[in-house]
Amino acid sequence: MEKRDVAVLGVGQTKFGHHPDKSLIDLFAEAFYEAFNESNIELKDIQAIYYGNFVGEMTDGSANLSGFISDEIGLKGIPARRYEAACASSSVAFREAYLAVAHGIYDCVAVGGSERLYNAGTAIGTRALATAVDGLHEMTAGLTFPGVFALAARLYAKKYEIPMEKLHEKMAHVSIKNHKYGAINPKAQFYNKFGDLKVEDVLNSKVICSPLTLFDCCPMTDGGSAAIIASADFAEDVIDNPVYVLGTGQSGAGGLFRQKEDMIKAIPRKISVEMAYKEAKVTPKDIDFVEIHDCFTIAEIIASEAMGFFEYGKGADAVEEGETWVGGSIPINPDGGLIGKGHPVGATGTSQVYAAVKQLRNEFKYNQVKDAEICITDTLGGDFGTLVNIILGIHRRK
Amino acid sequence: MEKRDVAVLGVGQTKFGHHPDKSLIDLFAEAFYEAFNESNIELKDIQAIYYGNFVGEMTDGSANLSGFISDEIGLKGIPARRYEAACASSSVAFREAYLAVAHGIYDCVAVGGSERLYNAGTAIGTRALATAVDGLHEMTAGLTFPGVFALAARLYAKKYEIPMEKLHEKMAHVSIKNHKYGAINPKAQFYNKFGDLKVEDVLNSKVICSPLTLFDCCPMTDGGSAAIIASADFAEDVIDNPVYVLGTGQSGAGGLFRQKEDMIKAIPRKISVEMAYKEAKVTPKDIDFVEIHDCFTIAEIIASEAMGFFEYGKGADAVEEGETWVGGSIPINPDGGLIGKGHPVGATGTSQVYAAVKQLRNEFKYNQVKDAEICITDTLGGDFGTLVNIILGIHRRK
Repeated sequence: MEKRDVAVLGVGQTKFGHHPDKSLIDLFAEAFYEAFNESNIELKDIQAIYYGNFVGEMTDGSANLSGFISDEIGLKGIPARRYEAACASSSVAFREAYLAVAHGIYDCVAVGGSERLYNAGTAIGTRALATAVDGLHEMTAGLTFPGVFALAARLYAKKYEIPMEKLHEKMAHVSIKNHKYGAINPKAQFYNKFGDLKVEDVLNSKVICSPLTLFDCCPMTDGGSAAIIASADFAEDVIDNPVYVLGTGQSGAGGLFRQKEDMIKAIPRKISVEMAYKEAKVTPKDIDFVEIHDCFTIAEIIASEAMGFFEYGKGADAVEEGETWVGGSIPINPDGGLIGKGHPVGATGTSQVYAAVKQLRNEFKYNQVKDAEICITDTLGGDFGTLVNIILGIHRRK
Repeated sequence: MEKRDVAVLGVGQTKFGHHPDKSLIDLFAEAFYEAFNESNIELKDIQAIYYGNFVGEMTDGSANLSGFISDEIGLKGIPARRYEAACASSSVAFREAYLAVAHGIYDCVAVGGSERLYNAGTAIGTRALATAVDGLHEMTAGLTFPGVFALAARLYAKKYEIPMEKLHEKMAHVSIKNHKYGAINPKAQFYNKFGDLKVEDVLNSKVICSPLTLFDCCPMTDGGSAAIIASADFAEDVIDNPVYVLGTGQSGAGGLFRQKEDMIKAIPRKISVEMAYKEAKVTPKDIDFVEIHDCFTIAEIIASEAMGFFEYGKGADAVEEGETWVGGSIPINPDGGLIGKGHPVGATGTSQVYAAVKQLRNEFKYNQVKDAEICITDTLGGDFGTLVNIILGIHRRK
């Protein structure tokens, strides 16, 4: 059964930060209407909703949100689904929406996500985030996410024989870069903040879970993001600037104790990204920039390796040497990433799509990557429980 | 784009009840392997997993379970999705799996769900269940599910001018029937219990939320359920007794304050069930038995009306008159339903499919509906936030 090309009609994203007065539904709706308003379609063209949220039941007492969302945005009664895949929730939703349109289940759908972790506070937020690891063996042993990635950093230092202090200096450049880019992005949580960090600022910030310090970590964030996608033929009829979905991949893994040293090689990411490259008929060399899941500085480094941009063990050097900055060989997170822009978990995946689409349309005036034609996004749910990659481009798949 | 026929290869269900020693992953895996073992396929034939769970993050500290599940059952790395739609979680998962196979995304997939609400205890369980209503306006006003359906019962009594006491007597027959059937179902939570309730036993049991008493309510349950589905061509190659998916529907609604009197007419169910009937090319007259979401006695009654089996306001009479018993015009819940069998929320949808498939294969020896060829299932998520219907039959769609 043939599949057809799919394109993004419009994208939306709320300001990331603290939204005490907006519900999960409000945040999705705000992002949805931004996406809808640039899509040049009527509301009735939208046949279904794909929504990602991680822990609305814990932060807001709100599960089962799909029906409420369709009601709120004026599409009462249409089929709406909620996906939960920790930080990859709206990336899974986006991929499912893409598959549904590509295979003719629908012609035009809305996708997005929202989350309120800042508003939940650090205690509830940390408890909620910890449910994305193995609830039975890892969380009960006290493992939360800074712990997972502190382990990753130590494993990386050991395996590639880099002294931990030296590695931390290299990691600091991820924070410096992403904060610099977040500080110039008006929708970022840290807009106008931390734009001039130095290595010592990162190393000397508060220890969260050694070796990780405060500036190694992304923040707790409230926010929403959305996209409208449709068949490429439909898209070309209604807008002048479709961005095409060239390929997607998804994989996952069980608990850390089964991953062992594979953890820093991120095997599920390898499976997912190769699935996406294969479908898109591209290689890492064809990619012009990347949206990577930098929940912690070390996370961006190991992702850049598993995605094929650097050899294993060389990603930390690459950021220090400027390869992943705008102007370098493969710019990563020109929107500030999770560290600079913020990480409203269920909204993060489609906010990467938002940033990618704006760049590919040459509309990302704050930090435009020149002549960008193809982008890959990468979203990590939990400690490799879910991995999703999405490849977007300005031309149809060959 | 043409869609193809889809069939169920195998089904599985754990014993419903209390499973303190089994995780959400264990419960799914146990049901999965029962379904797999009767499917006559190899593990590698399964290309994806569709999993439903409602509140694993609150009861077990476990979200992001998809990767853990695929790892556990021996399918490490394959794409797995978790759906959350309150009590309809695994029904949404089943419908999505059906659409994916029908439209050629996959040829063969596993679907199912699991939940541990009994083990969570009444306090955590009630708090968790309440997240399926409107978390912002309804839960904060003190509304939990017995309250929602107590309102429904009072609205029904008022609208159809039936004295509340008289209506409660009629409702009691739902409990008597479903407990009678649950008591003879070895996989039911109340196996060998409450098989001979009288009207006065129901009326005189403890008041939960007036007018609802204990026996008007389904219990808190731990359990898992699963199914393997594939293209009908694939199914016919490997097994002798495929059960076909003839049609599905899904809809939803926002909060109660927007539904008003529509609540007891269950408009989203009407939309969903008509979608399913239309796709299956059948009418209510073609249905031989029904699996209905009887979270409370009144819920079964209003569902039987919106599904087209009785006129609005006549469903309460029908159960009292024996129409919905096995041997009546339209048997409802011959497996005991949620009231007799139990309600492990995320597992309930595919456990309805389990019961339907066993009946249609003439294997439901405890309470077989004679010569049954077509069944419809009905799952309600929250207070009409999500509605899903699935029509199954022993012949391909005409």
